Order: sequence, then structure tokens, then C-alpha cells
Amino acid sequence: MIARKLEVNYQPFDRTTRVPAGTTLFSAAHWIGLPIDSTCGGRGTCGKCKVRVVKGLTEAETADHRQLRPQEIADGWRLSCQARVYEDMTCEVPQLLRVPKAATMGLGRLVILDPNVRKVYFELAEPSLHDQRSDTARLKDALTEEGHDMVAGVSVLRTLPQVFREAGFRVTAVLAGDRLVAVESGDTTGECFGVAFDVGTTTVVGTLMNLRTGMAASVLSTLNGQAPFGADVISRISHGMNGPDAIHELQHAVVSTMNSILAELYRDAGVSPMQTYEAVVVGNMTMLHLLLGVDPTPLSMSPFTPAFMDQLTVDAGDLGLHIHPHGYVQTLPALGAYVGADIVAGVLATGVVREDRLRVFVDVGTNGEIVLGSAQRALATAAPAGPAFEGSQIKCGMRATVGAIEGVQLGERVELQVIGGDVPAEGICGSGLVDTVAQLLLAGLLDHSGRLKTPADVPDHPLGERLIDVDGMRAFLLAEGVYLTQRDIRVNPESAKIIGLVPPVEVDRIIAVGNSAGEGAKIALLSYRERQVAFELPSRIEYVELSGRSDFNDSFISVLGFPELERVT
Amino acid sequence: MIARKLEVNYQPFDRTTRVPAGTTLFSAAHWIGLPIDSTCGGRGTCGKCKVRVVKGLTEAETADHRQLRPQEIADGWRLSCQARVYEDMTCEVPQLLRVPKAATMGLGRLVILDPNVRKVYFELAEPSLHDQRSDTARLKDALTEEGHDMVAGVSVLRTLPQVFREAGFRVTAVLAGDRLVAVESGDTTGECFGVAFDVGTTTVVGTLMNLRTGMAASVLSTLNGQAPFGADVISRISHGMNGPDAIHELQHAVVSTMNSILAELYRDAGVSPMQTYEAVVVGNMTMLHLLLGVDPTPLSMSPFTPAFMDQLTVDAGDLGLHIHPHGYVQTLPALGAYVGADIVAGVLATGVVREDRLRVFVDVGTNGEIVLGSAQRALATAAPAGPAFEGSQIKCGMRATVGAIEGVQLGERVELQVIGGDVPAEGICGSGLVDTVAQLLLAGLLDHSGRLKTPADVPDHPLGERLIDVDGMRAFLLAEGVYLTQRDIRVNPESAKIIGLVPPVEVDRIIAVGNSAGEGAKIALLSYRERQVAFELPSRIEYVELSGRSDFNDSFISVLGFPELERVT
Repeated sequence: MIARKLEVNYQPFDRTTRVPAGTTLFSAAHWIGLPIDSTCGGRGTCGKCKVRVVKGLTEAETADHRQLRPQEIADGWRLSCQARVYEDMTCEVPQLLRVPKAATMGLGRLVILDPNVRKVYFELAEPSLHDQRSDTARLKDALTEEGHDMVAGVSVLRTLPQVFREAGFRVTAVLAGDRLVAVESGDTTGECFGVAFDVGTTTVVGTLMNLRTGMAASVLSTLNGQAPFGADVISRISHGMNGPDAIHELQHAVVSTMNSILAELYRDAGVSPMQTYEAVVVGNMTMLHLLLGVDPTPLSMSPFTPAFMDQLTVDAGDLGLHIHPHGYVQTLPALGAYVGADIVAGVLATGVVREDRLRVFVDVGTNGEIVLGSAQRALATAAPAGPAFEGSQIKCGMRATVGAIEGVQLGERVELQVIGGDVPAEGICGSGLVDTVAQLLLAGLLDHSGRLKTPADVPDHPLGERLIDVDGMRAFLLAEGVYLTQRDIRVNPESAKIIGLVPPVEVDRIIAVGNSAGEGAKIALLSYRERQVAFELPSRIEYVELSGRSDFNDSFISVLGFPELERVT
Repeated sequence: MIARKLEVNYQPFDRTTRVPAGTTLFSAAHWIGLPIDSTCGGRGTCGKCKVRVVKGLTEAETADHRQLRPQEIADGWRLSCQARVYEDMTCEVPQLLRVPKAATMGLGRLVILDPNVRKVYFELAEPSLHDQRSDTARLKDALTEEGHDMVAGVSVLRTLPQVFREAGFRVTAVLAGDRLVAVESGDTTGECFGVAFDVGTTTVVGTLMNLRTGMAASVLSTLNGQAPFGADVISRISHGMNGPDAIHELQHAVVSTMNSILAELYRDAGVSPMQTYEAVVVGNMTMLHLLLGVDPTPLSMSPFTPAFMDQLTVDAGDLGLHIHPHGYVQTLPALGAYVGADIVAGVLATGVVREDRLRVFVDVGTNGEIVLGSAQRALATAAPAGPAFEGSQIKCGMRATVGAIEGVQLGERVELQVIGGDVPAEGICGSGLVDTVAQLLLAGLLDHSGRLKTPADVPDHPLGERLIDVDGMRAFLLAEGVYLTQRDIRVNPESAKIIGLVPPVEVDRIIAVGNSAGEGAKIALLSYRERQVAFELPSRIEYVELSGRSDFNDSFISVLGFPELERVT
């Protein structure tokens, strides 16, 4: 399935990466975080990404002939976004003329600010009898000169005659890739926003991002408005089976949730929907099907086939999402029916399949999604994970629903993220559990052997008094009536090992990455190149279907009641 | 502006054509009507258009490497749709395995049936736990195997889960280029329709075409519903200046006209809107702006700049046009503000710029649009032409408005096409005049010197008695009170010469080509390759703006009253 990788070496950095045949030099460089200049984002139109190939062969493409001089081509210069790797190669990268803006996001990932949405201000030549170009051609020619392609739909065309003439032909073009999203009067390049959405079955998180600075302008999470139709994806799908009206009802519910988040974000940040051009949306496949109004029924029964898995671009107006009326929604692709765009975003945020060391990425919830691998090879699968955290195995365990602690921050005091927002904590769900263990370690309340300390061990610790005794067992008090016991902590890695969620590693090698899906959506919003990496992930990660495999079924059934658990503890 | 043409010779036909640098071998062959096999219509995905380059150089592109074996590439085989001409070339074309369907259309143009809309029937593999591809991927993979690319919008995606499962995965994909328009249950390849519209200021003509056979299923013309807002483009634009609501009103009027034509066409041919996937629309730039809801105001004042001139593809649903809800409208490009898509269609239908001989194409009306040229070089312009046909110069002349004879057929009897349909003829407009002269010649009622015969000259002619005497001058009676006089006939080429419409050629070298705009729209509907030729016409024809040129203004004013006319006759 995955063929031998080819080696590409970049000079003067002497950085090497291994990529599948057919990858471009541009994309391969980005894969290892090595910035190559580009205005057009790898579309072959700006000519700024040229590199000199010194070892290995790549033929000159049409775009090379258009952008480079014949002597340059003869000397080995190629547009790195066009040059594909078919053998081991070495190339020289010219020094960057400008230092790109970058930010550390996700799990220590350095992300170069390079959003898909760009604004370009023009003082266009006014039409005359000697220059009768159409409004469209006038703008397109100006953009071409700056290295941008442009495709304009009729809805934007309708605005041109008036905007051009009112603005005296001083206008700002808003481009998303080569799609003309809007033309605005005057210089509006200072204001450019996008929104990242993580649409969870329980919770929807929206982050309004300033695409000029790369900073978050405002964040908000609320309950998914589909909640009344059931707590999990299966009950949502069941409701959808009542026909097209029911699917529309579910679609309307989640779009309304997103719009109410948007309204709050706009108010909080003082931003207008007209300045918000793009929404990157991730979520599990059921959530994405329902958001787009696509029947998810086949997802719920063997052989679990989605209607789509690839990334999709949809007009915001089509979905009724309150961003710029000519803006659009971009989803990320999925790896399988139960390893959705949220996991792809998580892999993007954690960089799991970009480095040589072997890592495993686990999203724990009712389902546990697992990605195991490195830059060499990666595998993904999903398995029911609920039983590990629900019921009696974890003292205060509960499903990821209203009242569950899903995030924990331990410092001078305990800060909890509880599903449903302003409600009392009732228990801990999977992600909250992993979070708590990691935070206890960081706070020095848990030693590396997994032993919970006593108040006497940490006399000056501000959280020392939360180390309590419950029925003769050490525990840490998270909230009124909600605590994590010594057994919960010791059990967790072990039970995770038993159900196959994580390998038997030291607990301090487990990192709680927080909302990795939302983080990945933000990264894809801020960086066109990172987005391309996300689009490529399904071709780089092998999906393993567990259902129908007798070896999996047997071992799954054998651990449902954790029979070995009792023996281990 | 137009660089030196390069020569391409095709073997074994020994046919040569001259094309601008950068033209593909595929496109150049089609330019001279030489068919090269292709399923994908020149998109580089089917691999069927390969030719062997025996003289001249063309580098292998990515698509070549994908579709051809290394030995084939070494032997000079290239995909003709990818190979661009940068020097004089000779290539060998393999014999066609199937004889393509073709029809003679327009002015003796042999058009190969190759519509943009295609249907492909599949019996897809049903999903299983070993084949969990999404519905989209399943269809896309099957299409790729047949050499088609596929891009699916969310509106079509929404239909997949149900159609696939109801149809037991036996479905017909409807593709327009690489755009997935619909997926239908079972094998529907037998039923595939499109509609060609010529949207005139006065009249709208719709032709429902069977895209499988290439035959017209039904034709209908009616008055443009915008008529109440004024008879000519200037009064329509003036109404549009009242604001967005007025533009919407004009848009609604013409879309309603088109929908009423469609309803009649469907009824007459027994065809459903669901089987009609594409509408090719031509018209002058004011009509196209209003149809798309774009403000045409700048068209009406110097420097006459349209909002767009390129071809556009618009969702039928966006315009409210009653074809398949996921179907689309394709417009043709324009050459200038007053040389619109109707003229481009006319040039396509007449093939004026495809042959070596010099020809002039004139569309006579209130404005006269003129294209002069050959395959070597071509020029286009527009000038007010109304004065030549209105008022006193032509005895029964009138503008192209209700009651005007716009088409004439002389056989056993006189058949008239009158604007407005079932209304009495009141006069002759420009196109009717040219038509009448040509038909009189064909019917033997006019000799080549331009002399109208007498009843005595043609004793057995069924139309002999229509040769009448009006105030001592010979004339031909077209309808009650409407006739063409000897002076009208003699004056016509002469006055046309004076105002610069046509050069001083013999009258029998003037051919009335009828509704060349509608004919061109039909050709573009039936042939993707001809459509590409139409898309390229703006880059091949130089537009000449006459307004603001003092030499033109002077000569225009000097002939307004035809002072020389009196001296000549």
C-alpha cells in the first residue's frame, strides 16, 4: 500500500526528509517545517518558490517555462511547487527575503502564518476608451501581476460595477486560494478574520482567528444544539432516519449553535461577519454529514460507509452560516467512518506522523480513535472505548456529556473545563481523566511511579489539602463529590493497555494535548500549507477496520468486564 | 498584438494549420476539423488522444508520464491535449477506432458530437468491510477507470446515500466536464438533453437539443419579457439605473421568458427538466448582464466597460432557470461591450476566422457588429447601423421590434418570420432585408446584376405575381403593405458599403446566415471542443473601438443622411 519513500535533501540547511514518489519539493520542504518563499501558496503562478536542483532529475513543466528564464531552467532552477520527486534528490533553497510570521501551536508545532484567505489592495487604472477591459479582467490582470490566479463567481461579479466606481477603483480583493470572495472599497487589508470550529457530538467550540496576526480574537464553546435528539452519534443518526425533514432539523440545530457562537465571538472581539471569510470545520463523520445535510444512515450499520471522506468546500450561504455571504466552509478529510476530520486535525496539531520517533495519538471518548506511527508508516483505527471510563471501573467516571470534567488545569488553584459550561461537575470523562493524571504529575502531586502523594509529602503545596482519603484510599478532589482515586490512576494506563488504547509506557510519557481537534482546525485556518498536509493525511495513514475481525471481537468481548483488571490491581 | 503563427502538419492526412504559440496539438487539430480520439475532452485524464511527434520538440508532461509507457514517450508519443506547440511541428495521428457522430451546422460547419454533458452507467461494487470506500470515492474511482475526473458539490453529495442504496449501486453518473451534476438510479444513458438560448433584446429563442443524437427536439421563440421596460438595450439599462430592485425586475423578466419557453419545449418534446442538464446562453452584453443580475450601467456610457467579458458558468438554481436543479448555465465570452456573446456564437457558427479566405461577418440591427478576417488575422467592431434601415432610406424599413420581418423563406410560397410571432408584418428590419435579397436570388427572382425580374420574365414561377409595381418602381411583395423595391435592393449593398458595413462585393457573395447566434449556441452545446474554440475567440480577434475616434465620428456623421446615396442611384 505504501511504497518506498524517496530522500530529499535541502541545502544550505542540510535537512533531509523522506516522502512518497510524486510529492512536490515545495510540499516535502514544508513537511519538515522548512519555509520556502511563495505568494500563491504553491499554485505555480507567483514564481517565488524556485529552488536549484543539484542532484536528481525533474523535467521543466509549463509553469517553469512561464516563470523562469531559459538559462535558469538550464541551470537546474525549478518551481518547487511544480517539481515532483521521482528519485532521491538534493536541492538548494534561496535565502528568504522576508522572515515569515510563525507561531507555536498544537503540540509544539511551529506554524508559519500563511492563511488561504489573503487580501490585496489595488489602485487600479481607471477605464478609458484605450483601456476598455471589463471590471473582472482589470482585477484579474492586477492580481496576475502579483502572482495570484483568480476565479470569480457570479455573486461577487454582481458587486463589482458599484464597488469599483464608488471606490474610485481603489479596492481590496479578498482571495481564498484563487477564489475571489469579495471586493471591498478602499484599503481593508488590516481586517481579515476566519473561524475554526470543532463540532463535537456534545460540545461545539468556535475560535475567531485574526488571519493577519495569527492570534485568536475570541473563543467560545457551547453544547451542540442537537443534544435534544440524543447524546451520542447513534441516537442522532437514528433520528435522521425519520427522513429528509429530520436530517434538516439536525442540520439546522448545529448550524444554529454555530451561528450563536459566531454572534458571541463577533460581539466579544468587535468583528463583523463581513470581515470573516472562511470557516474551517472539523468533527466526526456523523457531525460533518449532518452539518452538510447529508444522510448519515449508512455510517451506523455495517459496512459503515460514509457518503464522503474527502475535504469539502461549501458556500457559507448554502449552509446559512453567518460569515461573509460569499465566504465558505472548509472541512478537513477523514480517515474512516469512525476516524473523522477531528482526528485528522488532531494528527495535524500533534504532528504524530511527521517525525521519525514512533508515537501513538489517542482520542478517548465513547469511541477511542487511535493513530499509531511516525513519518515512515502510520496506522489508524477506532474502537469502542466507553467501557473503560464509564460505570464502576473509574470511581467518578462518566460519559462525555453535560457535567463531565473534560479538561483540568492545576496551578495555584484547580481550573476545570466542564461540558455544558456553567454547570456543576458530576464526574470525569476520558479526556478529563488523562488530563488530570498529566496535571497531577506536572504539579508534583503524583510521582513517576504513579503514586499519589499525601498532604504530608507536599506541606506547602497550594493544592495539598485536596489530597484526601476516600474509603481508605488516596484520592485527589477535583470538585464537590468528584475525585480521582489512587486505583483510578494506577488502573488507567493498565486498563488502557488491556483494551489496546495505549501501549504499556510510563505514565509521564502520556501527554494530554487538550482540544487537539480545535487546535488542528486553527492550524489549517492559519496555514494553507498545513492544510495541504491535512488533505494528504488520508493517503499517508493506513486505516484498519476492526469490526468483523474475529481476533478483535474476541479480545474486545474478553475485556468488557475487565476480568484481568481485578487480578492486576 | 498577434505573434507569428506556427505550422502544424498532421499525418497521414497531410493537413496543415497555423496556430499561435502555446496552442495544444489537440486544439490545433480540432481547429481544422480533424478529429482526434478523446473521452475526457482534452483534460489529460483518458490517454486516448495520443499522437506521435515526428518533427519539432515537446517535453513530456506529468499527464504523459501517467498515461503513457516510458518506451512510448521515448518514441515521441504525447497526449495531444497536453503537448503545446512552440515551434513548427509534424505529428502522426492514430486511426480513429470509432467513427464519431457529426452533423453539419451553422454555415456548413461539420460539428462532431462531443457534448460537455456525458452520462456513464456503472454497476458499482457494493460496500463491504473489506471495501469501505465512501460513496463519493466509489463513484470517483469508477469514473477514473473510464478516464473521467470528478468534482462533486455538496448538493449532489446529499443525493448519493439514498440513490446508491435504492438502485443497488447500479447508477448513471451525469458529468459536465469534471463536475458531477447528478447521479441517477439505473441506466438512464438514453436520455440526455441540453438547451441552447439566444437571448436577444427583442426575441428569445430556445432550442432543446438531444445530446445523445445531436438532433433538436423542439424550438421556440417568443418576445423577451423585458420588452415593457423599453425596446432597446439603452432603455433597459436606463430602467436598471433605478437600483438593485429594478435590475432584479429585469433579470426576473428574462428568466421568466426562458422558463416559459422551457415549459413549452418540455411539453412539445416529452422531455423532463430533470433530463436537461445544461443551458448554453448567448446574447449581447446587456442581455447577459441583466440575465445574471449584474448592473449594466457602465455599458451605457463611455468608456463602455462591462463587468465581465469571459464565459461564465452559473448554477441553474442560482438563476431560477428550470432545468435540472443541479444543472448549470454556460455563457459564451464577448469581444467588447457591444460585440457580445451572440457575435462570438455567430463567428463560431460561420467559421469566419478559421479559414484562409478573407470574409466579413455582419450582424445588422440597431447596432451593426462586424467581424472581418481569416485564420491569419481578424478584427471586430460595432457601429450604430439603425439609420441604414430605419426611416426613409428603405421603403418599408423599420427597427427590429414587434411586427418587423426578420427572416424570409421563399419556396412555393412566402414564409415570414415576424418578431412577436403571431402578429401582422409591418415592415422589414436589417436581417429581414438581407434575407429577402438572398432568397430572391436563390428563387431566381433577382438576377446577379441586382435587377428585380418582372412577372413576364418568370411566367411559371409560383411567386411571380408578387413581383409588383409600386409608384412606377419594381418591387417584391412580402406581406400586406410590406414590400422591397428595386431601389431598396440596389441601395442596400451600396448603403452598406457607404456606412462601412460590408465591402463593395457582388450581392451574391452575401450570404444570409439566419440566426447565427442561436446556431453557435447549439454548436457549443453539442461540442465541448467547439466550445473551447469559442472560449479562445477573444484572444484571436482584435477588438477595434470606434467611438472617440475622430476619423470614425466624422465619416459617421457625414453619411447619416446618405448624401452620396442620392448621387449614386
